Amino acid sequence: MKVGDRHYRTIWMNEDGRSIDVIDQRWLPHEFRVVTLKTVDDVATAIRDMWIRGAPLIGVTAAYGVAIAMNEDASDAALDQVWEKLHETRPTAINLRWALDAMRAHLKAYPESERAEAAYARAHEIADEDVELNRSIGANGLELIRRIAAGKKPGEPVNILTHCNAGWLATVDYGTATAPIYMAVEEGIPVHVYVDETRPRNQGAQLTAWEMNGHGVPHTLIVDNAGGHLMQHGQVDMVIVGTDRTTANGDVCNKIGTYLKALAARDNDVPFYVALPSPTIDWTVKDGVKEIPIEERNSDEVTFVQGRAADGSIAMVRISPQGSPAANPAFDVTPARLITGLITERGVAQASPDGLKAMFPERS
Amino acid sequence: MKVGDRHYRTIWMNEDGRSIDVIDQRWLPHEFRVVTLKTVDDVATAIRDMWIRGAPLIGVTAAYGVAIAMNEDASDAALDQVWEKLHETRPTAINLRWALDAMRAHLKAYPESERAEAAYARAHEIADEDVELNRSIGANGLELIRRIAAGKKPGEPVNILTHCNAGWLATVDYGTATAPIYMAVEEGIPVHVYVDETRPRNQGAQLTAWEMNGHGVPHTLIVDNAGGHLMQHGQVDMVIVGTDRTTANGDVCNKIGTYLKALAARDNDVPFYVALPSPTIDWTVKDGVKEIPIEERNSDEVTFVQGRAADGSIAMVRISPQGSPAANPAFDVTPARLITGLITERGVAQASPDGLKAMFPERS
Repeated sequence: MKVGDRHYRTIWMNEDGRSIDVIDQRWLPHEFRVVTLKTVDDVATAIRDMWIRGAPLIGVTAAYGVAIAMNEDASDAALDQVWEKLHETRPTAINLRWALDAMRAHLKAYPESERAEAAYARAHEIADEDVELNRSIGANGLELIRRIAAGKKPGEPVNILTHCNAGWLATVDYGTATAPIYMAVEEGIPVHVYVDETRPRNQGAQLTAWEMNGHGVPHTLIVDNAGGHLMQHGQVDMVIVGTDRTTANGDVCNKIGTYLKALAARDNDVPFYVALPSPTIDWTVKDGVKEIPIEERNSDEVTFVQGRAADGSIAMVRISPQGSPAANPAFDVTPARLITGLITERGVAQASPDGLKAMFPERS
Repeated sequence: MKVGDRHYRTIWMNEDGRSIDVIDQRWLPHEFRVVTLKTVDDVATAIRDMWIRGAPLIGVTAAYGVAIAMNEDASDAALDQVWEKLHETRPTAINLRWALDAMRAHLKAYPESERAEAAYARAHEIADEDVELNRSIGANGLELIRRIAAGKKPGEPVNILTHCNAGWLATVDYGTATAPIYMAVEEGIPVHVYVDETRPRNQGAQLTAWEMNGHGVPHTLIVDNAGGHLMQHGQVDMVIVGTDRTTANGDVCNKIGTYLKALAARDNDVPFYVALPSPTIDWTVKDGVKEIPIEERNSDEVTFVQGRAADGSIAMVRISPQGSPAANPAFDVTPARLITGLITERGVAQASPDGLKAMFPERS
């Protein structure tokens, strides 16, 4: 999407035809830095140290990492080595493993002399597939926004609340939850986005607000506590969030706090949508609350906050007393009963076993 | 309550019999500073610049401010002057006005020569009355904790979630929402408190966590997003919060985000209690959502976070992009239907017009 006047993806190949550039997201929203990844070590560092994040983007970056490796040494041994090296950067990231497996399986069929070229071509394809997936999600979500807009006075914006960053920065372009929003803007439908700051890591304040700002989407940053009050007063027309994992029952595991917004939406008859590419559906899990283990992250994420200090430096401040322990569950599960619909690349599915089966009959 | 080994109130008279000491809360939780207020100007600054905060504590501090004034000049003119001077420090604070009115009416009955002494005596009384009110709330809430503890295995703590700071720092001692907790600790009932950080001003992380830490109450700091997840997993036995204003219907206006916790409590059958001294009931208001105007505070509270920097200084950092606007509604309304009970100084009232009338028949 746009950063000021220019259109960006989160990752692209340089004119040398070998190295790739990514947006170094550690400095957002305070500084927009692009960094060139020339070696497999560069790629490993970028993934491990979260210069880039978001499941789809991690996968695409790893795919390019394999291509960079093949350009140096296209042997089977080198292929296995880059798989290992990149896999260990974030061993629990499903998309990372998927992309590495896909690249290895694809390249094994080629003679060594053609592997580098084939690897870059496949990495480009994976990147473009991500964009297409998000564009399809966007088109399906756009239809929902269009319907709400039709009930508004001319010029009155559709107010959309989102939590965390399921934006273009987490993907190659468009994002998942944000895709319908960007497509509404492209169509000239007036929208306004309430951006939950999303403690503890503040992905809303740091990334989603920056995205909206860069693309010129009218938006307002709010604390995570505020959404219920806004819904009580008719200031939110719909909620769209992303998901890390969706169960076969339609339960959604997403960033901590999503469940609270779903409860408020239900209490105030505000439609609550989840945008997701179907690969994030885990067909082996049914009851999300009972079955999905929730990652407990470092408590420093709660007790310290990062931002830009008065002197312009990026600094961390401690907000709580020494000696007070903190807990940091990273995700929560929103039960299907609270979800109005699942916006997938095929259409908007009902959040239920039957709804998902009807949309993805090949899985039943 | 205790700060380390010593018992403190938030305000006390010095041995000189004239000046008062208060805890300068601006530096909490990072530094515990006590400051002496010797003049009316000192008292006005302490209230205006929020060295002290919390409705009850503001009222008591103002009462001592009148006493300090009477010690200099006990004329009717001086009495009117100190009323004006202190009232304008926080003109919308109901308790401030109440305390100033009470002091003036009381002192007018005395000859000038006796006013200083009478003023200090009345200020002491107002302080002690606040402590007694909170102790009664505590005793009534303690009974609820005791019942939950009775269903636990020996040694297993009662898990209580609280939002914001309705603690002893907001009052003279005990606090309102925290009074039952401190009294449970005094009785040896094992408790554990989940402390919501309470964005944007972080009163939970800065004040409630500090209180718990100082008094040795087992507690865990969490982001405001986490409470729903904890309730889904049976980790919260009850919620106790305070209130700024309670309506005749039993609706509760409290710090932004309270409503979301009440929704989660209802969805998971967790009892949700509100602790309040009856003077905070506004008998003229019925429907809190429709009738109570919500204060919109400075958006800098959302976009900047204060804490202790690596060099030990207290610093502010900006967490969001320049150019992203923020909204900052300070309170929300929790409808009576979501409230299990109102813990007052007289007993636990049902959150309904009939429940409140039964507890306070003189108001019906």
